[in-house]
Amino acid sequence: MTHSIAIIGASGYTGAELIRLITTHPTFEIKALAANSKAGQSLAQVFPHLRHLDLPDLVTWEQIDFSGIDLCFCALPHKTSQEVISQLPRDLKIVDLSADFRLRDVAAYEKWYGNPHAAPELQKEAVYGLTEFYRDEIRAARLVAGTGCNAATGQYILRPLIAAGVIDLDEIVLDLQCGVSGAGRSLKENLLHAELSEGTNAYAVGGTHRHLGEFDQEFSAIAGRDVQIQFTPHLGPFNRGILATCYQRGEAQAVWDALVMAYAAEPFVEVLPMGETPSTHHVRGSNFCHIGVVPDRCEGRVIVVAALDNLTKGSSGQALQNANLMLGADETAGLMLAPCFP
Amino acid sequence: MTHSIAIIGASGYTGAELIRLITTHPTFEIKALAANSKAGQSLAQVFPHLRHLDLPDLVTWEQIDFSGIDLCFCALPHKTSQEVISQLPRDLKIVDLSADFRLRDVAAYEKWYGNPHAAPELQKEAVYGLTEFYRDEIRAARLVAGTGCNAATGQYILRPLIAAGVIDLDEIVLDLQCGVSGAGRSLKENLLHAELSEGTNAYAVGGTHRHLGEFDQEFSAIAGRDVQIQFTPHLGPFNRGILATCYQRGEAQAVWDALVMAYAAEPFVEVLPMGETPSTHHVRGSNFCHIGVVPDRCEGRVIVVAALDNLTKGSSGQALQNANLMLGADETAGLMLAPCFP
Amino acid sequence: MTHSIAIIGASGYTGAELIRLITTHPTFEIKALAANSKAGQSLAQVFPHLRHLDLPDLVTWEQIDFSGIDLCFCALPHKTSQEVISQLPRDLKIVDLSADFRLRDVAAYEKWYGNPHAAPELQKEAVYGLTEFYRDEIRAARLVAGTGCNAATGQYILRPLIAAGVIDLDEIVLDLQCGVSGAGRSLKENLLHAELSEGTNAYAVGGTHRHLGEFDQEFSAIAGRDVQIQFTPHLGPFNRGILATCYQRGEAQAVWDALVMAYAAEPFVEVLPMGETPSTHHVRGSNFCHIGVVPDRCEGRVIVVAALDNLTKGSSGQALQNANLMLGADETAGLMLAPCFP
Amino acid sequence: MTHSIAIIGASGYTGAELIRLITTHPTFEIKALAANSKAGQSLAQVFPHLRHLDLPDLVTWEQIDFSGIDLCFCALPHKTSQEVISQLPRDLKIVDLSADFRLRDVAAYEKWYGNPHAAPELQKEAVYGLTEFYRDEIRAARLVAGTGCNAATGQYILRPLIAAGVIDLDEIVLDLQCGVSGAGRSLKENLLHAELSEGTNAYAVGGTHRHLGEFDQEFSAIAGRDVQIQFTPHLGPFNRGILATCYQRGEAQAVWDALVMAYAAEPFVEVLPMGETPSTHHVRGSNFCHIGVVPDRCEGRVIVVAALDNLTKGSSGQALQNANLMLGADETAGLMLAPCFP
Repeated sequence: MTHSIAIIGASGYTGAELIRLITTHPTFEIKALAANSKAGQSLAQVFPHLRHLDLPDLVTWEQIDFSGIDLCFCALPHKTSQEVISQLPRDLKIVDLSADFRLRDVAAYEKWYGNPHAAPELQKEAVYGLTEFYRDEIRAARLVAGTGCNAATGQYILRPLIAAGVIDLDEIVLDLQCGVSGAGRSLKENLLHAELSEGTNAYAVGGTHRHLGEFDQEFSAIAGRDVQIQFTPHLGPFNRGILATCYQRGEAQAVWDALVMAYAAEPFVEVLPMGETPSTHHVRGSNFCHIGVVPDRCEGRVIVVAALDNLTKGSSGQALQNANLMLGADETAGLMLAPCFP
Repeated sequence: MTHSIAIIGASGYTGAELIRLITTHPTFEIKALAANSKAGQSLAQVFPHLRHLDLPDLVTWEQIDFSGIDLCFCALPHKTSQEVISQLPRDLKIVDLSADFRLRDVAAYEKWYGNPHAAPELQKEAVYGLTEFYRDEIRAARLVAGTGCNAATGQYILRPLIAAGVIDLDEIVLDLQCGVSGAGRSLKENLLHAELSEGTNAYAVGGTHRHLGEFDQEFSAIAGRDVQIQFTPHLGPFNRGILATCYQRGEAQAVWDALVMAYAAEPFVEVLPMGETPSTHHVRGSNFCHIGVVPDRCEGRVIVVAALDNLTKGSSGQALQNANLMLGADETAGLMLAPCFP
Repeated sequence: MTHSIAIIGASGYTGAELIRLITTHPTFEIKALAANSKAGQSLAQVFPHLRHLDLPDLVTWEQIDFSGIDLCFCALPHKTSQEVISQLPRDLKIVDLSADFRLRDVAAYEKWYGNPHAAPELQKEAVYGLTEFYRDEIRAARLVAGTGCNAATGQYILRPLIAAGVIDLDEIVLDLQCGVSGAGRSLKENLLHAELSEGTNAYAVGGTHRHLGEFDQEFSAIAGRDVQIQFTPHLGPFNRGILATCYQRGEAQAVWDALVMAYAAEPFVEVLPMGETPSTHHVRGSNFCHIGVVPDRCEGRVIVVAALDNLTKGSSGQALQNANLMLGADETAGLMLAPCFP
Repeated sequence: MTHSIAIIGASGYTGAELIRLITTHPTFEIKALAANSKAGQSLAQVFPHLRHLDLPDLVTWEQIDFSGIDLCFCALPHKTSQEVISQLPRDLKIVDLSADFRLRDVAAYEKWYGNPHAAPELQKEAVYGLTEFYRDEIRAARLVAGTGCNAATGQYILRPLIAAGVIDLDEIVLDLQCGVSGAGRSLKENLLHAELSEGTNAYAVGGTHRHLGEFDQEFSAIAGRDVQIQFTPHLGPFNRGILATCYQRGEAQAVWDALVMAYAAEPFVEVLPMGETPSTHHVRGSNFCHIGVVPDRCEGRVIVVAALDNLTKGSSGQALQNANLMLGADETAGLMLAPCFP
């Protein structure tokens, strides 16, 4: 048995990562690749590292015949994504990797993204794609909204702790470093090698990063009250990886227990022994997330550090994991690749 | 059907790369991991990126029971390798990744490595492991000697050209950049991040690099006369990848034809369209080798550029490809992973 | 008028940085360079980037004739430093770059460094070298203790805020990334390019980093009560630079005002316009420290980010600034070099 | 005595490097900074690393009053440069950093740059700016054309050898790696950190790089006959630095002697002891060029390796050195900064 797959937005990094992963998948077959700005080109022209694959040339998404497609990944920029998806067949299974369907509330969407949503009915239909916490809904979903990569990392730390009631909800600081592929293949001065390598800086400081919309929505729902965390992302001089360091008021043992309990049966989330912390080097190129807990010298405070690969577990790997659920495939299919180190 | 595998020297980079690849292999099962200096440690301690794997702890190689092992990879430093292998069972299939069995001639070995060989009879038995050119011998071999990573790259360019007689044998310049993982996990000042990043330098300039022993042996055998190339390696500020730029006197079309002919049926060696050249970015983490040909503006001269990943196609991937042949498995098993880009 | 300078510990990174800076100094002349493990070598052998300089060969520190030396920099590892300095002439002006004389309290030293201090009388004599806050004491000092590079960065943010009483002393989180040169020229596996590049990790998590001894000593003294901050350093894949992101409870305007007031007349500390934050890229290779303030979306909370070069303002630049004061030279002499970007 | 300086094209990397160097110059004062696309912005906005400098805001070049300007640096893109310079006062001393005035022959210019020259009379007037070889002409010049950065590196190796007649002119291979700042601050996909870091590739393979126009012009003039070298540049994952490895037929001792003779009195070009080769790490951020010679194992062949910083000795440092000559200042003023390592 095989599943026929289409990818729209195949010329960006998350598109390439989807293709990389799917080529190891036992039942998925890529039938169509769309990238409107590069339609007509071969995959080898757009991504020479995929030149060994026997895959179709890029087309526009309008050229795809969706009748034989079992599932379509959309790896488009936000805003474009809602416009395209609202024109796709209404019975097509879709995993969207953009930000367009992550927020359930119309007003929250407009607040964080600055424009009214063009497809609010789809927004309502979409299931939030953080696999470990929405598994049943994803299995039954037609449209799944991939999470933000930073948003995923923060939630892997905080969801079990908020649910278990083991931390103070009013003193959460999430400090995070993200690799540059998280910014996509966009031509901006600060993403040039000459500007970005050999140093680091914070950005979206003070609570303006859009992934806060996801944190607010999810954490408040779990807590049953408003929860607002402090969140500062930094841009690191590396391509793949997110390291989140989270400061909380709570007891380390209770925090560690809650995490171990939450992820005991999870194939991709590993809680390290108490006192150890992870490194992005050790999850690079893989779908794994490593989490570590350390008590602080200041009594009653605890630090949790999580590491994952923004392109894999934070984006395309998550998308594939969700697609597996939606199509009834083995949830881990195509995703057990070991990290690439060094 | 499964094949039982042991790895000696599992705490170095080529050992880790073997494990990474074998975890995607359909029939290989790792039964023992040895690393004498780290015996007693778990794999997660030595390589946290492999912590998700359910593999045995490290032992000393003397502790391995080889009776049930189908094939053993030796990823030890040179000199140590010959000492260990000479004490292993004489009917054990072995793929050695060190330099110890690459040179067939006792005097050549001593010239390049500075010491007499401790196991000259094994030296004679060993088959040179450049898969595409020794496939039948490897299939029948008990002991296969993995090639140098630079040596592999240069040979992928030059073997078909020498064999086809399309280049001048007296004017070959091979200029090469190698990523730092090629130097292994050794504690040397020049391998520190602070010393190596953000710049580059040549080393072993003037014909002193040991891989020249392999070039001399192989090229002279093909040509039926002495062939000595000029070869300068450079240490680049990246972890994986070799880029070789080779200058020759010859006609570009004949050169390209010879390469296309040589690799037409090869699953891992791709000759790019005339005029295109490869990048190490596009083979990183994979077993592929990309080769490109460009005519020079100076008439009668041609440039060939090849890229591969030193840890994969240049070492552990090659070793696995050879092991597949030796055990009658599909030659490409565990090796079709797409490169990891970006 | 010239000042005669000696450097002990000239073969490490802070030694090299001292030499780099002093070569642009109008009145300092390097008369002796010591590095016991490399005595007899020329500077060009130890640091080829300094080969154009006409400087003496390395000797042992015991070989230096201190009679004509106006000031000696000690750039030795901690513990070695106290042993050497206790044997130097008691009237020699010394700027020590190690950790040995930073803590004034004997018990605090033993707690953080794990051994009793070998020269407690010198420990008492030493002046803490954070120039902007100990200027008068430094001018009059014989022995100045250079601060920790992370400790300097955190204090540039927090000292004025604690002094002005504009932040809550019980909720201070200092999250910091440090470049690898901060770890010195030591041969450790995690400092290899292959292990450190392309990713990041936290270390000394939970309040075990020794620079906390400095924070505790200084902040408690300013506040007149015990102050304990939370502090997590991260190791970033870049050579030079520290970025500290500090989370506090307080009003952004009051915080910004306190910083502007504190640094208005300082030549090297720049407070950015409200809402802007700095980057390590923009201070690399220089003695400047950039500080930015942003109000958080969570009312009553504020984020302050500081950037400096750990080898310059965090270590050797600071040392030179202090030496200028001790010798009556212009405080900024040799220190006005613009950052090196890109 | 002071010299009043203007810089046109101040928002690019060579502009920033000029400013960095000039701030250490004893007599140069920057009076005007032009960057038409960013006119009206402060220098701190365009280059935050220069925010400590008290310099004028950016203007358009048309807004500059050149009456009080002693010398103007033009750091514009090629083609734009000739258009602008042809409109500047005819008695204004100019150092141009673009490619526009490097080639003396109108036809050669059109061949390499693809368009007819817009100011052929200026082209004739311009002096080629390789300081060590055109010192007297530069001293007397009104308009000096800065060399290509790769072109400078290759010439430092080859000019003395061709002049001394110690190498075969028909077998010269120049293999070169260049840091990414050589490509300027331009928004191209292959210059993004995610595409360029962690690997390398050749470009302009086969003799199409424009700096070959300079090599042809200069080497043929010295030799008194046509000389065509083979030249392959590579793009390395580092920001600053060029390493050129040059293969020649000749005797190493004669080659080394010719280089030592040529550069014996030069303040910035250092010939290493026979057998040693340089590293870009050791010239980064400085105006120095290191050259090393090694005999090859193939008799009668020799390898010469040179390293310099493309932004400094290869471009802005060279420009400042030439400006010093044109204004009668000390040739080394502002240029003796030690390299920045690590």
